[in-house]
Amino acid sequence: MAKRKKLKLGALIHGVGGHIGAWRHPEALTDASVNIEFYKQQAQKAEEGKFDLIFIADGLYITEQSIPHFLNRFEPITILSALGAVTKNIGLVGTLSTSYSEPFTVARQFASLDKISGGRAGWNVVTSPLEGSAKNFSKKEHPTHPERYKIAEEYLEVARGLWDSWEDDAFVRDKESGVFFDPSKLHRLNHEGEYFSIQGPLNIARSKQGHPVVFQAGSSEAGKNLAAKSADAVFTGHETIEEAKQFYADVKSRAAAYGRSGDDIAILPGFGPIVGRTQEEAEAKYEELTKLVTIDKALAYLGRFFEHHDFSQYPLDEPFPELGELGGNSFKSGTDKIKRVAKEQNLTLRQVALRSATPRTPFIGTPEKVADLIQQWHEEEAADGFIFHAATPKGLDEFVELVVPILQERGIYRTEYESDTLRGNLELPVPDNRYTKVKVNS
Amino acid sequence: MAKRKKLKLGALIHGVGGHIGAWRHPEALTDASVNIEFYKQQAQKAEEGKFDLIFIADGLYITEQSIPHFLNRFEPITILSALGAVTKNIGLVGTLSTSYSEPFTVARQFASLDKISGGRAGWNVVTSPLEGSAKNFSKKEHPTHPERYKIAEEYLEVARGLWDSWEDDAFVRDKESGVFFDPSKLHRLNHEGEYFSIQGPLNIARSKQGHPVVFQAGSSEAGKNLAAKSADAVFTGHETIEEAKQFYADVKSRAAAYGRSGDDIAILPGFGPIVGRTQEEAEAKYEELTKLVTIDKALAYLGRFFEHHDFSQYPLDEPFPELGELGGNSFKSGTDKIKRVAKEQNLTLRQVALRSATPRTPFIGTPEKVADLIQQWHEEEAADGFIFHAATPKGLDEFVELVVPILQERGIYRTEYESDTLRGNLELPVPDNRYTKVKVNS
Ligand SMILES: Cc1cc2nc3c(=O)[nH]c(=O)nc-3n(C[C@H](O)[C@H](O)[C@H](O)COP(=O)(O)O)c2cc1C
Ligand SMILES: Cc1cc2nc3c(=O)[nH]c(=O)nc-3n(C[C@H](O)[C@H](O)[C@H](O)COP(=O)(O)O)c2cc1C
Repeated sequence: MAKRKKLKLGALIHGVGGHIGAWRHPEALTDASVNIEFYKQQAQKAEEGKFDLIFIADGLYITEQSIPHFLNRFEPITILSALGAVTKNIGLVGTLSTSYSEPFTVARQFASLDKISGGRAGWNVVTSPLEGSAKNFSKKEHPTHPERYKIAEEYLEVARGLWDSWEDDAFVRDKESGVFFDPSKLHRLNHEGEYFSIQGPLNIARSKQGHPVVFQAGSSEAGKNLAAKSADAVFTGHETIEEAKQFYADVKSRAAAYGRSGDDIAILPGFGPIVGRTQEEAEAKYEELTKLVTIDKALAYLGRFFEHHDFSQYPLDEPFPELGELGGNSFKSGTDKIKRVAKEQNLTLRQVALRSATPRTPFIGTPEKVADLIQQWHEEEAADGFIFHAATPKGLDEFVELVVPILQERGIYRTEYESDTLRGNLELPVPDNRYTKVKVNS
Repeated sequence: MAKRKKLKLGALIHGVGGHIGAWRHPEALTDASVNIEFYKQQAQKAEEGKFDLIFIADGLYITEQSIPHFLNRFEPITILSALGAVTKNIGLVGTLSTSYSEPFTVARQFASLDKISGGRAGWNVVTSPLEGSAKNFSKKEHPTHPERYKIAEEYLEVARGLWDSWEDDAFVRDKESGVFFDPSKLHRLNHEGEYFSIQGPLNIARSKQGHPVVFQAGSSEAGKNLAAKSADAVFTGHETIEEAKQFYADVKSRAAAYGRSGDDIAILPGFGPIVGRTQEEAEAKYEELTKLVTIDKALAYLGRFFEHHDFSQYPLDEPFPELGELGGNSFKSGTDKIKRVAKEQNLTLRQVALRSATPRTPFIGTPEKVADLIQQWHEEEAADGFIFHAATPKGLDEFVELVVPILQERGIYRTEYESDTLRGNLELPVPDNRYTKVKVNS
């Protein structure tokens, strides 16, 4: 086996939090989702911890039942551009949907972020799970799950093509001769596909890292194939190391079918560790969290994954209801799993709702225990690294101060940035420009 | 007459410059259009000069003939977000086209920029003059000039509606009761129009300044009407004070027809003054500029305004050719004027091309003379202020150091920011939230 790459770490900055009751925590800043000082502090703390990247999630449709963070939050492109200006090395990854946007604009905004930040941009390609999104974009219908992935595939081809519009040495900028650029190094994509017709060229050139790093965050079959074919990194979620190992091996092995090496795709599950000086202290922190959630909020949260289904109509303490195909067109991989586990473990609706709202992570304990688990997941190829999200308001600060030094001492995690680009730190290859002829040594 | 508001100033940051030969100037930074340090320096210099705003122009289609700055430049939303993080008071205004974008996304990005910057965002609404833009957005045809303005009008209605989704006191955030927001203060737009169907709500609330400041930059009849109906400010361009006065009075008087006061629309012509210690020094600077342009580049530049028409096919020293309707669907107000002036003054093609490429501004001379002209335009209601663009690489720095102090001494321009929002500094009203019932004193 080749030498294992060092552990990679990302930090999901998630305002008042992904946990529906997180904002009620005594230490929580209740306006965190629109508080620029909070975002700056978290980004700088992650950079202090030598994280590879910060990560901004996104969504395009809210209702009264959405989790608090989703209702009123910064848009990814804008907040990442702002955070790029107050950080130096950390990567800037944002979620943007291929189902409701224009490839020319999106390719351009990420290329511009990439250039502004000196090669630190990343794009988490998603297809928008929520059906209601269509209503905010003058569309009659939300595309089906298979169609969304077909669109995403073509979209990503177009974006990568536009990013190559200018060869790296196209700009001559010779004042004397008056030649600003070499026209033979400017290329039009002339893409004519099923969903898009895009001529190009893009009006911005590549950054040092070639293309922004492309993340993929869907875990369905279509999602895994898209990752294997065209992503640089995968954001995923697992509850056990076994599940994670299986997913890891699966995606890496699919890469070969597309002529790629599994080594060129970083697999980064999300995780929200809870650290305490003792196991008891950590457990107490988790207990405190579960108490912030009421059952009606938990039901509403669960409904979000099933096309905003109203779960309050069912008895709470009877087996999880039969839902047929419901949820299959939104968060497919997630809803399939909820249904399967409920059946296997014979769970009631109340149990399913509360578990979904405050999922118990295996990463609860002392800094050493959490570091041990991280090391194990990394060594046993369950993960190339993790996307951290704070389970409690001070979660990131504590992780950087208590867990990161242990990982560094063990030599599995950097003490200094190796590179000033995101690709460089993630040890991912810089994509060749498709038009540049490789120089042959004579 | 009511007391005249103080002079307003904006700074167009334009990379290697709008002048096609500007990048060849001995002092020019040839990569300025993609140089973040240059943009930061210029934004901070403008803030040092207490400018109301920086301004980023934009375009969606390039060819080999485009001016150098357009080929490879930052995208407005990203660069403004980055600059917002390294400035404190200055407004951040960006151009974004209503012909090739989604209102939900654009309303959201400007709202997010507005929140990130603490109420300093502005949006220059344009309709995209260049026909070729359609080819980068999977569209068969570029919409006609009248249709583009119909789209823009509906688009702006939608954006303002989305910005009001949340009333200003909607977020209760009471940890004790678990109430995060008051659902009666969340509103759906439910817009069903000719071009857009947008339900809402937007997933971000209003900033301190209510709505981002809306600029309008078209000078045709349709453009002026859109400005009078829904804009907060107008970016325009004039060669003489007479022309400027007429335009000023025209737009201000149209406002009444829409139930608005002309006082609520700031008229800001673009200008590129050239300052020297003596008149001769300033003239020499202008002469140096004209020499940076070759006739073939000037012809190509002219072509850009006429749907990329090839002017090299005509004799240079004969009267400007008859072009029929050509240019009417792109920069209409500009091309109409070029044709009219060429006829009136009996100009040759060479003269028209060189004048277009290096237009002579009346603002050439000593700091006192430039300050006199600024004061005259302001006092005589030819302008509420100006959008400065640098004619030479050090133009902004010189203007801030030499001209601004004179304007301050005369008491017509601020020495300190009056407000921390863009609206506040421009002395424009904060729009009411359309859903908020005004409290009646009992
Ligand atoms: C870990 C993870 C994070 C995700 N983050 C987002 C997100 O921020 N925004 C979004 O619209 N979808 C997000 N998704 C949803 C997926 O991109 C996808 O649209 C949906 O899950 C359906 O695809 P799938 O069945 O392939 O998982 C995420 C999914 C996973 C597994
Ligand atoms: C001073 C000024 C600045 C402009 N800036 C832009 C710009 O940055 N990007 C753009 O696409 N159009 C820009 N325009 C073009 C107009 O918005 C408009 O699309 C075009 O001129 C046709 O409209 P009109 O005939 O009403 O002027 C500008 C126009 C003027 C007068």
